[in-house]
Amino acid sequence: MFEIRTDLAVEEKESFPGRGGEVKGVSLREWRKAFSKIKLTEVSILDEQGSKAMGKPKGTYVTMEAKCLAKGDEDYHREVAAELAVQLKRMVKELKKQKKVPDRKDIHVLAVGLGNPSVTPDSLGPKVIGNLQVNRNMDEGEDTVLSGIVPGVMAQTGMETAEILKGIIHETRPDLVIAIDALAARSIRRLGTTIQLTDTGIHPGSGVGNHRHSLTVKSLGIPVLAVGVPTVVGAAAIVHDTIASLIGTLASHMETREMGGFLEHLDPDEQYQLICELLEPEFGTLYVTPPDIDQTVKRLSYTISEGIHMAFYPHFATS
Amino acid sequence: MFEIRTDLAVEEKESFPGRGGEVKGVSLREWRKAFSKIKLTEVSILDEQGSKAMGKPKGTYVTMEAKCLAKGDEDYHREVAAELAVQLKRMVKELKKQKKVPDRKDIHVLAVGLGNPSVTPDSLGPKVIGNLQVNRNMDEGEDTVLSGIVPGVMAQTGMETAEILKGIIHETRPDLVIAIDALAARSIRRLGTTIQLTDTGIHPGSGVGNHRHSLTVKSLGIPVLAVGVPTVVGAAAIVHDTIASLIGTLASHMETREMGGFLEHLDPDEQYQLICELLEPEFGTLYVTPPDIDQTVKRLSYTISEGIHMAFYPHFATS
Amino acid sequence: MFEIRTDLAVEEKESFPGRGGEVKGVSLREWRKAFSKIKLTEVSILDEQGSKAMGKPKGTYVTMEAKCLAKGDEDYHREVAAELAVQLKRMVKELKKQKKVPDRKDIHVLAVGLGNPSVTPDSLGPKVIGNLQVNRNMDEGEDTVLSGIVPGVMAQTGMETAEILKGIIHETRPDLVIAIDALAARSIRRLGTTIQLTDTGIHPGSGVGNHRHSLTVKSLGIPVLAVGVPTVVGAAAIVHDTIASLIGTLASHMETREMGGFLEHLDPDEQYQLICELLEPEFGTLYVTPPDIDQTVKRLSYTISEGIHMAFYPHFATS
Amino acid sequence: MFEIRTDLAVEEKESFPGRGGEVKGVSLREWRKAFSKIKLTEVSILDEQGSKAMGKPKGTYVTMEAKCLAKGDEDYHREVAAELAVQLKRMVKELKKQKKVPDRKDIHVLAVGLGNPSVTPDSLGPKVIGNLQVNRNMDEGEDTVLSGIVPGVMAQTGMETAEILKGIIHETRPDLVIAIDALAARSIRRLGTTIQLTDTGIHPGSGVGNHRHSLTVKSLGIPVLAVGVPTVVGAAAIVHDTIASLIGTLASHMETREMGGFLEHLDPDEQYQLICELLEPEFGTLYVTPPDIDQTVKRLSYTISEGIHMAFYPHFATS
Repeated sequence: MFEIRTDLAVEEKESFPGRGGEVKGVSLREWRKAFSKIKLTEVSILDEQGSKAMGKPKGTYVTMEAKCLAKGDEDYHREVAAELAVQLKRMVKELKKQKKVPDRKDIHVLAVGLGNPSVTPDSLGPKVIGNLQVNRNMDEGEDTVLSGIVPGVMAQTGMETAEILKGIIHETRPDLVIAIDALAARSIRRLGTTIQLTDTGIHPGSGVGNHRHSLTVKSLGIPVLAVGVPTVVGAAAIVHDTIASLIGTLASHMETREMGGFLEHLDPDEQYQLICELLEPEFGTLYVTPPDIDQTVKRLSYTISEGIHMAFYPHFATS
Repeated sequence: MFEIRTDLAVEEKESFPGRGGEVKGVSLREWRKAFSKIKLTEVSILDEQGSKAMGKPKGTYVTMEAKCLAKGDEDYHREVAAELAVQLKRMVKELKKQKKVPDRKDIHVLAVGLGNPSVTPDSLGPKVIGNLQVNRNMDEGEDTVLSGIVPGVMAQTGMETAEILKGIIHETRPDLVIAIDALAARSIRRLGTTIQLTDTGIHPGSGVGNHRHSLTVKSLGIPVLAVGVPTVVGAAAIVHDTIASLIGTLASHMETREMGGFLEHLDPDEQYQLICELLEPEFGTLYVTPPDIDQTVKRLSYTISEGIHMAFYPHFATS
Repeated sequence: MFEIRTDLAVEEKESFPGRGGEVKGVSLREWRKAFSKIKLTEVSILDEQGSKAMGKPKGTYVTMEAKCLAKGDEDYHREVAAELAVQLKRMVKELKKQKKVPDRKDIHVLAVGLGNPSVTPDSLGPKVIGNLQVNRNMDEGEDTVLSGIVPGVMAQTGMETAEILKGIIHETRPDLVIAIDALAARSIRRLGTTIQLTDTGIHPGSGVGNHRHSLTVKSLGIPVLAVGVPTVVGAAAIVHDTIASLIGTLASHMETREMGGFLEHLDPDEQYQLICELLEPEFGTLYVTPPDIDQTVKRLSYTISEGIHMAFYPHFATS
Repeated sequence: MFEIRTDLAVEEKESFPGRGGEVKGVSLREWRKAFSKIKLTEVSILDEQGSKAMGKPKGTYVTMEAKCLAKGDEDYHREVAAELAVQLKRMVKELKKQKKVPDRKDIHVLAVGLGNPSVTPDSLGPKVIGNLQVNRNMDEGEDTVLSGIVPGVMAQTGMETAEILKGIIHETRPDLVIAIDALAARSIRRLGTTIQLTDTGIHPGSGVGNHRHSLTVKSLGIPVLAVGVPTVVGAAAIVHDTIASLIGTLASHMETREMGGFLEHLDPDEQYQLICELLEPEFGTLYVTPPDIDQTVKRLSYTISEGIHMAFYPHFATS
């Protein structure tokens, strides 16, 4: 059975009735820095109740939104990269405070580029690793030790990504994983314009390639920060939204009690059920993506790798 | 405004009421060779009336369908390649008979790989050219002279594909173009399982990348055979089909005159209009594609290049 | 200091005086199957003395040579793939006999594609994994369980390949590694025409990318078969050979005692010393490769992946 | 027969006896801007005599050298890009003055990415076009109209690059071609550290892929500026240099008249003859390249595309 899903906590939050209304166990904070075009949102899922309501694990989800990210403005990307660095550093600091990462300057960070390098919208993670300047193999006097891996996809390796990473972590003992992944959004306006950073790791069913196993502190033994950008919308999500919109239209066109009566019976779960009946089973894995996705992914891979450089290599931040 | 379209004549034909019913100016022939899993269909658009009804230019559209094409069976692909060679040779023979191509053995064929090499579902054409063994630069005693070009996409070149090809044809004087392109289908069941061969060339709005100008005997000065495989379904097409299905479901659920009355008023054009109102304008360019499209495109690019080899290099056919 | 090296045991053996003469601790066997164009050579390094003389570890090195491998003859490649399968199966059988691999049908083989995917002559290993049909993630009733990984290069990962593999092996418990790698040869005539299969694994300084650590039963804990094809010649090797040839020419041109006397003093070690003085230090890492290496690597990656399929998936062997 | 060649005029000039000594018909100018690490050299071949001595056509060759280009310093690359823009604008201005390019602001420039995208050291040109933001298809109010093409290599297309470009120029009527190409140098120290800009176009035998036909105002009908970076050294060049060095060493080691006598007889042409006898014929096409060439080419492709942007899009220059 397919799933109508979004990997963005901010979209999940928006989907609640009264948009922006309160959800128990979930807090929301929105802000914008002075003179900046970047809108920041922090969704915190505080407890089990919030987690259940949102369908996402407890933790913090920071979203950086900027319409101009979809365009090729170089200075602008530098601003977004700098903001990503700020947020990454904040999360690492918090992890140090919580003793989940050792409170040393020279922590070892393993960057993981999730996704399939040969499927354009899924290739964001591998491209970021391709841009990254790792230093674990060098003696360059940097504070942070950085290593990177592109684990590939199960259809190519026959292995779960979690297995590959667990092995590498066992052998090289990093303190922290930063996983970069292409995400699925609900709204096509999110494609290539939003970066989500979360301290909750990667969860089953998330990402363009639909990971089967989680990559979290629980499964890998060390904290996992996840950086993601929506590059696809699930085909089912688009159909769902259009049909919800159609039902609204039909209901307003027809002022008969019968029609209204039928539609009133359809609560969101029943709507979902109805759509599932209408759609074919193959549908669940299909995704929707724009034709210029290659440029978007290339550009964003530089923004993210630069953000990671700025967060961990001090000389990048000042240049 | 987006367009709900299919590049497959066979799907256009199926969309007529009474599925398989007669359309004036269009003839249909279906057959299957003994012991073969390949289903062949030939749609011939005979006159202006047929062309208008089908929304496609006059000419012949041969479709090879085989579910197993979606799988990686090597012997099977060889059978499809051989069938493609048979159909290609038949079309070239017909063009010779009609004096549109000189009746010599050593005609010069220019293979054109349309599409964007860096967008996976659009990369079929460039991949075919990458596999092709051209011989125009050699003196190998082959009968047919074969050359090949990947013209790129307008966003990368700033030029129309038609301009680039007209120039190259002006300079190198081929007798025939074979254009290979990734197509958009209506049904997701067509993705990677159907090859269409047509003598009508490439038309505005067709292909994954939505060509703006036509590539035809009229625009290029020499006949254009087009080989295409559906690798995407337009997002709008999927929404349309689901909504049509929903309307049917709603109508059968509600046996009130009012609802029926409203829906009866919606003829296909009005349904289309309604969907256009529901969907956002960005929608038109979005496409739906499966996550394993990289393997499909890789495999089919070999099937097609082998089919072209078999059609024009006799020693390939016998090996 | 650079190294004049060959990864091919058969070339090392040829370099001994009297070419084909006996070396203590090394046995040589050459054969050719009836009606076959493939020349087979097996160099066995039997003891420490042989190992020291050859500069290679103890073990078996089987070489398949076929000039036509450099050309694109498809049937021919199938023959070479079949021979590779025969030799692979023979080595696995021997490992089972020696209890180094469990004597079961359903052993788990981890295929490792060494090298840098973005440097053409070093991309053979990653391309083979790209062609491979792994099955560990499926339930297909094959006897052998196959998984595959492209570990990347240290400049990109910051990790030794041995670390990555040790971790993955620790986690997924394969019984055997088959490592595929691009090799450096001495003679440019070997480029793309020779496949070497050995049970000794991968050693420091071997391969195009010059691995720093060994991948062997000792370092990884399970046996490592290595499949390699020369795609480069070390720049230093070429200079060395030319100069050796020049010295011969000069010596024969000049029949004076002085010249002869000077050159007689130059034993191979002194010649090597002289060349080291002449060459710049950067020289050691440079390699020589032909301009059509992309086609060669692409073609051979199919031959090798098909050989592995034939060795481990019975239904491939018969098709 | 192979050729010992360099595509760099500055290296050709250096090869003359007395290094930097005067050559009739050739003028040399070297300078360095204040606070800049870039060394600029301009070799002008003034007449037929100079052309014959240098083995290169009449015209201007500007070289930008900077050791740091081999490293990944981003600010530094911006400086080199800016200098490339200055030199490009100077050459275009000169062409306008000479009425070879129309003296309008809105000239149409066709950027041509020469070389084979799938052979790493030859992929510089295609990568630059991949980074370029063409605008001929848009209406963005830029002064210069920019289009771009990757014509591919003859082994893939069966066509000469000159044929493809002549056709495209005939159809789209640009005023100027800027051809980007990977070059062969004599010295390995030039690899990735030097950019050559010339107004003489591309000539037979130049470039990594050894173009057979010239791309010049004569063959294409419009002026051709060529931007090149050495990414390979011809294998023969390296052997030649080492042997020349050996002969010097031998001569100084042996103070006998006989040896001296033999070597004195070997003028450069005879040395060359001797080396030709020693080397195998395949040798001519082989090239030498470093293992990290992928990073070098990726980085330089950005420097060059940014230089072109700065030269023709005023808003880039100021950002």
